[in-house]
Order: sequence, then structure tokens, then C-alpha cells
Amino acid sequence: MNPAQPLSGAAVPALLERARALVAPALRAAVGRLAPPMNTVAAYHFGWIDAEGRPSDSDSGKAVRPALALLSAEAAGAAPETGIPGAVAVELVHNFSLLHDDLMDGDEQRRHRDTVWKVHGAAQAILVGDALFALANEVILEDGTTEAARAARRLAAASRKLVDGQAQDIAFEHRERVSVAECLEMEGNKTGALLACAASIGAVLGGADERLADTLELFGHHLGLAFQAVDDLLGIWGDPRSTGKLTWSDLRQRKKSLPVVAALTAQGPAAERLTALMTADAKKSQQEFDDFDEAEFAVRAALIEEAGGREWTAAEARRQYDAAVAALHGVAMPDAVRERLLALGDFVVVRQK
Amino acid sequence: MNPAQPLSGAAVPALLERARALVAPALRAAVGRLAPPMNTVAAYHFGWIDAEGRPSDSDSGKAVRPALALLSAEAAGAAPETGIPGAVAVELVHNFSLLHDDLMDGDEQRRHRDTVWKVHGAAQAILVGDALFALANEVILEDGTTEAARAARRLAAASRKLVDGQAQDIAFEHRERVSVAECLEMEGNKTGALLACAASIGAVLGGADERLADTLELFGHHLGLAFQAVDDLLGIWGDPRSTGKLTWSDLRQRKKSLPVVAALTAQGPAAERLTALMTADAKKSQQEFDDFDEAEFAVRAALIEEAGGREWTAAEARRQYDAAVAALHGVAMPDAVRERLLALGDFVVVRQK
Repeated sequence: MNPAQPLSGAAVPALLERARALVAPALRAAVGRLAPPMNTVAAYHFGWIDAEGRPSDSDSGKAVRPALALLSAEAAGAAPETGIPGAVAVELVHNFSLLHDDLMDGDEQRRHRDTVWKVHGAAQAILVGDALFALANEVILEDGTTEAARAARRLAAASRKLVDGQAQDIAFEHRERVSVAECLEMEGNKTGALLACAASIGAVLGGADERLADTLELFGHHLGLAFQAVDDLLGIWGDPRSTGKLTWSDLRQRKKSLPVVAALTAQGPAAERLTALMTADAKKSQQEFDDFDEAEFAVRAALIEEAGGREWTAAEARRQYDAAVAALHGVAMPDAVRERLLALGDFVVVRQK
Repeated sequence: MNPAQPLSGAAVPALLERARALVAPALRAAVGRLAPPMNTVAAYHFGWIDAEGRPSDSDSGKAVRPALALLSAEAAGAAPETGIPGAVAVELVHNFSLLHDDLMDGDEQRRHRDTVWKVHGAAQAILVGDALFALANEVILEDGTTEAARAARRLAAASRKLVDGQAQDIAFEHRERVSVAECLEMEGNKTGALLACAASIGAVLGGADERLADTLELFGHHLGLAFQAVDDLLGIWGDPRSTGKLTWSDLRQRKKSLPVVAALTAQGPAAERLTALMTADAKKSQQEFDDFDEAEFAVRAALIEEAGGREWTAAEARRQYDAAVAALHGVAMPDAVRERLLALGDFVVVRQK
């Protein structure tokens, strides 16, 4: 497609394709600035080359964040291109966090490929993550405009929340009791903040007033929580062939994700049995725990479901989606843009089906 | 001392003390925003608490960068306090890099204390480093002024160079040949860029024109290279009681620092013997290399000295210092401020004596 052509309708594939077409060249140019070997390691992470350095065309994400950034520029009445530096910066921050999180969590696979620390070692995963984060700040401030500075402030705040969220996520793994409110706060930081930034940064670059920017941020925040609730469901019940992760992935990592926390804080015999099992699990060494067979995780997943954790999380995804939609209707923007933002939001949540 | 009192003369201890008095409260307030346990881990890193969480008053650096930031505000005719957000942001970026570098380099000690990864684990060292970096961007942009945005751009560029420099430093450890020019480029990135930023960020916040800001940046860049040359000398010949590191520290890590590179690229029998030894060293496993006794490192250090690496590096420190001084004389600023910047520069280089 020709990215300069105006989009007709609200077809999500076209929105994502436009985002990829407009943002990928700018993203590649930014990453190309890094000192070797970081440029190569980053290119591997993004799926542009394989582990041997040969050109590759791996799936490097769905471009939901870039699509949001471009649409948010249009929400402010600006051209979608106005959102490009914002889209690039948000992608860089997102991928900085993936590089570091995969290392901290010991995840060996992402998007069906070995993770960076697995292929290039821990030092490169740390360094390239740092470099992408630094690059994000450079890219967003490059224009030198007042709008760029406002966008940079929102990006900085979102980045810090992102790190706070990862810190909370790790801390929760070692805690026996985590409340649903704490889990939602963690997910709001870890996933909500950057999606909120993606959904507003283009508007800020396009000169939006604070009210429009804040409303789009709120839309993105709720959308992020809806997305994360779905992700939490997939983290337990997702098909490894489509998630690219191991079965019962989040259970293997003892993640206190929403279904787990909702089940543990529920009443009844299933919740009690689950609590007893997980209290015992917490005392096991990582090796003992890693040696569990499939059936052990299946038992825990069944108890989470029986205690209502799966159903509650699916309902929570819907509630957050509804809150996102409600936010979007609270502010003026071109109807066609609102329609596309809603279609994209729907796409994010519909993953669960 | 009362930090609000004007300084008389150019006494370096008073300059450093003023910087600590003005910057420490703002730095502590910024770090206090981090989500637990990152606030505690960061407080340990800065030496405000010990490993058990008890209040501590460890040496947390000499405050050269904060002192430069405050003086640079005065160079632009602004109050020293104008430089505080810049000083805090630079300190945060510097400490982000220390946390990550110590982990990547496997350094177990810093400032005579166990490093963060050693006490709190690798994940916390990564996370808290990320958090300090994010916080730096937040702090510098907080004011929302045009000056803050200009300062943030310079900070972003310096941060990226810092990461580039660390990447080059690590890459050089595995390379047989590194030229003096490459080593200087690496050190310019790793040390020069952030000192250059410290020396100019206060001026930018104080509304300096580009010429003054660029000149102060050049001053800081050369000062950083002088500082690093001295640090490279201390990394081989420094007294462990004052460096807080092991003897022959940089040799143990196979660092291609300036004295090593200068010696390896020199002519004569000492350079040839050193090259032969180091080529064989490069083929050794880390374990074999770690098992070297003191005498093995002493032989290498003696050959580096005999080949002229020590003398060349000391002369390079002086050359860079002279270039810093020359830069400072190329632009108008209050005489008293120039005098203090020169005194601080002298202090940085005089460490070698």
C-alpha cells in the first residue's frame, strides 16, 4: 500500500499496515545510529536479521502502539506523520523493556525466537536495552519544539512507571499475598502507562490541548489494562503455538497475574486448595519447581478456573475495554478517527477469542 | 556551611561541599519517588544506608559533576541553584551507568563497598539502573521550560554516547588490536560525554546561548578525557587502599585502557614482549586468567611502563587538561566563575599525584 494515501474506513489490518509502513523506516534509521555491535544485536531483537546476521523478516510485533500514536496525531487534527517520532520513541521504550525483562525473567523465547540474552549474552541485552532507551529520548526531543518537549515529559513519566511496574511484578513473585488492587496497579504501570503514552503522544506532537491529551492517555491506560488482562489469560491458557511461549507460562514463573490473584483472594474450597498448593510452591527451590510435570500446572490452572479467576479476568478485560470506550467518547475529535481508535481497541481485546 | 552564602575564592573543597549541600536533598527526593524495593536499593547504592538498611554515611563520590553543573549555571550569569535539576539528572545518569557497568563487568566492589548486584542481585541492579535513568529524564524535563527541553536534549545525547562508550569498552576487551584513536573515542563517549554535559547543563538551564553552552561542553569533554587518562593510570598503578579496587584492577579485566593501548602500539622490545604475552592471555579461559598471581600482573604492568604506556598516558592527561583550559578561555564569563572552573579542573587531574 501507499502510506501517503488516506485510509478509508476503520479496517484494523490497514491501520497496522500503515503504521508499519510509516514507522519502520524511522525506527531502522534510529537503531542504525547505535555503535557496533549494538546495532546488530538490536536488529536481531527486532527480527530484521537472524542470529547469524542474515536478513530476516520475522514477526516483530503487531504495531498496535505505532498505530495508536499515528491515530492520536489525527485525533488532534494533525497529519498521521506528525506522530512518527512519538511512535518510534514508544517502540524503542517498549523494546528496551522487553530486552531487560526477558533477561530478568530468564525468558528464553520471544516471538518464537531465542531472546537476545540467550543469543548474544546478558551484557548485550543490558547494553542494547539501555541504548534503545537513550535513543528514545533522543528521537522524541530531536525536533526541539515545545510539543516535542511536552511529549518527552509524558514519555519520561511513562517510562518510569514501566520500570516501577516491572519492579512490582518481580516483588510480587516472592510475596504470598497480593491484592487485586495491587495487581491492577502493577499492570497499570507495566502495561497501561506505555499504551497510554502511545495513544496520546501523537496528539501532543500535533499540538493537542491538555484535555484531549489526558483523555487519550486515559483511553490508552484502560486499553492497556484490558490488553494485559487478556495477556494474563493467555499466559495460563494460551496455545503455545500462537503465544510462542511454554504451556502454563506464567504459572511456571510463579507470576501473580490477575487470574491467580483473583482466585487466591476468592472464597470457597477451590480457592483454599489453590492457596495451600501455592503456599507450598513458594517454599520450593526453583529447580524442584522447574521439574514439575505438565499435570502439576494443569491442576493449578483448573483450580484457578474453578475459583473464578479466569472468569473474573475475562470480565475485567471487558470492564477495562468499556472504560476505554467511555473515555474516548468524552472528548471531541473527528468521527473517522474515533471510529479507528475504537476498532483498534476492539482488536486488542478480541485476541482472547 | 550555609549553601546560600556566596563562595569566596576558588577553594575546591568549598565548591564540592556547596554542590553536595545543594544537590543531595534534591537527589534524595527524586530517588524517594521510586517504587519499593528500588528506593531502598538505590539508597544502598548511593551510600545512604548499609546492606542491612541502617542509615549510613558512606562516601558517595566527590560531587565533581554536581559542582560543575552549578558552576556552569553561574557561567551563564544565573544563580547556582538554577543548575540543580541538571546536577541531579547528571548524577542519576552517572549512577545508572555505574549500576549496569558493575554488573556487566562483574565488579564486586565500588567505593569500598559491595556493589548492588552483589548485595541485591542482578535483577535489582538492572531495574534500579533503568529507574535512575528514567528518573533523570523526568527530573530534567519537570520545569517544562524551553531551557529544560534544551538541557534534556543534551542529556539524551550524552546518555547515548555513554552507552556507546561502554559497548566499545566491552568490545575492545575481546579484540587483539585497538588503536589509540579508538581508545580515545571510547573514553570520550564513556567519560567525556557526561562530564561535558555536567559542565554545560547548568548554563543551558540558565539560558546560555549555544556558543557558551558548546564551549563549556568542550571544556567538560577534555576534562573528562584528562580524568579518564588519570583513572586509567590508577586502574593499573593505583593504591588499592585509595581506589577501593583490587591491585592491577584493569589488567585483571583485560581492559584495553590508554596505557595498555599506547604500549601495545609502541615500538621496541618491551612492546613486542607485551604483545606476545597479551596475545597468549587473550586465548586463556577466564578461570586461568583469574588464577594468575600478583607477579604475573606486575610483569605486564612493568612492560607497559617500559614501552612508554604510563608516561604517554600521563602526558595525554596533561594535554587534555590544557585543551580544557584553552577552551574555557575562548568564551566570556565572570572571572570568578572561570577561576573556579579551572580550580575544579585542576583538582580532577591532580588526583594522579
